[in-house]
Amino acid sequence: MSFPVHVIKIGGNIIDNPTACTDFLRVFAQISTPKILIHGGGKIATQTAAKLGIETQMVDGRRITDRAMLDVVTMVYGGLVNKNLVAQLQAESCNAIGLTGADAGIIRSTKRPVKTLDYGFVGDIAEVNSGQLNSFLKSGLIPVIAPLTFTSEGVLLNTNADTMASATAVALAPLQPISLIYCFEKKGVLSDPDDDESVIPSLTPESYATFKASGVINQGMIPKLDNAFKALESGVKWVIICHAQDLALAAEGKAGTVLSLEK
Amino acid sequence: MSFPVHVIKIGGNIIDNPTACTDFLRVFAQISTPKILIHGGGKIATQTAAKLGIETQMVDGRRITDRAMLDVVTMVYGGLVNKNLVAQLQAESCNAIGLTGADAGIIRSTKRPVKTLDYGFVGDIAEVNSGQLNSFLKSGLIPVIAPLTFTSEGVLLNTNADTMASATAVALAPLQPISLIYCFEKKGVLSDPDDDESVIPSLTPESYATFKASGVINQGMIPKLDNAFKALESGVKWVIICHAQDLALAAEGKAGTVLSLEK
Repeated sequence: MSFPVHVIKIGGNIIDNPTACTDFLRVFAQISTPKILIHGGGKIATQTAAKLGIETQMVDGRRITDRAMLDVVTMVYGGLVNKNLVAQLQAESCNAIGLTGADAGIIRSTKRPVKTLDYGFVGDIAEVNSGQLNSFLKSGLIPVIAPLTFTSEGVLLNTNADTMASATAVALAPLQPISLIYCFEKKGVLSDPDDDESVIPSLTPESYATFKASGVINQGMIPKLDNAFKALESGVKWVIICHAQDLALAAEGKAGTVLSLEK
Repeated sequence: MSFPVHVIKIGGNIIDNPTACTDFLRVFAQISTPKILIHGGGKIATQTAAKLGIETQMVDGRRITDRAMLDVVTMVYGGLVNKNLVAQLQAESCNAIGLTGADAGIIRSTKRPVKTLDYGFVGDIAEVNSGQLNSFLKSGLIPVIAPLTFTSEGVLLNTNADTMASATAVALAPLQPISLIYCFEKKGVLSDPDDDESVIPSLTPESYATFKASGVINQGMIPKLDNAFKALESGVKWVIICHAQDLALAAEGKAGTVLSLEK
């Protein structure tokens, strides 16, 4: 295979908004090249946990996942969210298949070691089965991946969806050109956080370094962008950061911020 | 393909018993011919619904599925139960892939029409995509199917696992010999309901008619057996009814009750 593949990540903000989500899925279904959707969880896990009397603990935006919370995220991410996305895509004539990392062994991880903090049942990615993912794509299936992975011992682990998207893109990169698209609630990387229209159209390592040094880029974006450039250095052709509603244009490099190693 | 395929159904009683379930999965993983696992839900859906303040209504053993209950079964069957089965099978070197009917469009249904009773979001099977299931089997994947299907409009529907197993077996039958195995809590069809050892080793339409006429077979088994004979008439080679712990022997026709059209 040498056609370009889109690895597209959507966050909880889209999952939480049914209208925005339906609009997004309609556009996603229409992208004609092979594609993979990786989704976050949204607020439903926290809401469901609360209803079940399970307290949610977040540290730096990461969910502490004890055994009870692991069951909740397995239900919500792997079941409720994933299967509804798949059913909706099927209705849009998109042959979606919902997967966690455990299914067909596509993304294996190891439990994050306890250092200063015990994240609990949280996975650090060990291996992406790019052959299996490619075989799905070749047969016309569209993987829709929930943020869960598994260990060799058969334990499910809660896993960051951004990291799963970038690891998947990197693993597929030796086989065909990959564009990794992060859809979020802004139109791209902004030069002025108070002006939603101040999208920086493209970033190279050089221009990124300049923006970073001058303090133009929002601090919160820096870890995301650092990881995006790492994905480029590992063979991903483009990383695009865009608003979910601009996906159709962004997939053609015509919206959002396009990151690449070349000028 | 012309090798025999086992379509194996396990009920909630195994799902609800972690030790029995682990033992079952170990044996299932070791069956060397291609196989499909179809699982029921167990008590976890009812327990989870209760914790969420959602009342469970059962009529003749069937769950009335309103919108809130549909979300619960999607979480529990499609997420918690299905993904834990898959992760455990992966740890047993069995390349399981967890699916609902919506995934890769394998089992489509229509919402059950309201007659005297409104079952809510419950599906009657319309079509099994046998080509896709065969393609998974050919590539060495082991489908693990949750009791959920989907409509052409993208709505998930709660669906009876026994019916899904028999419809799957019938759909695959034109392509290769199929044995449909129902694992339950008894060692087979009993001639004396009070004697667990009184297993009838084999049944043909003739012997079944005789047993039925003489009242030997437990009333509760009759709908199951009627459906099993329908599956045989529709091309399934064998139907085997056995205890989950006897799966290894039953898969070779050496335990449980073996139903077939031939003497």
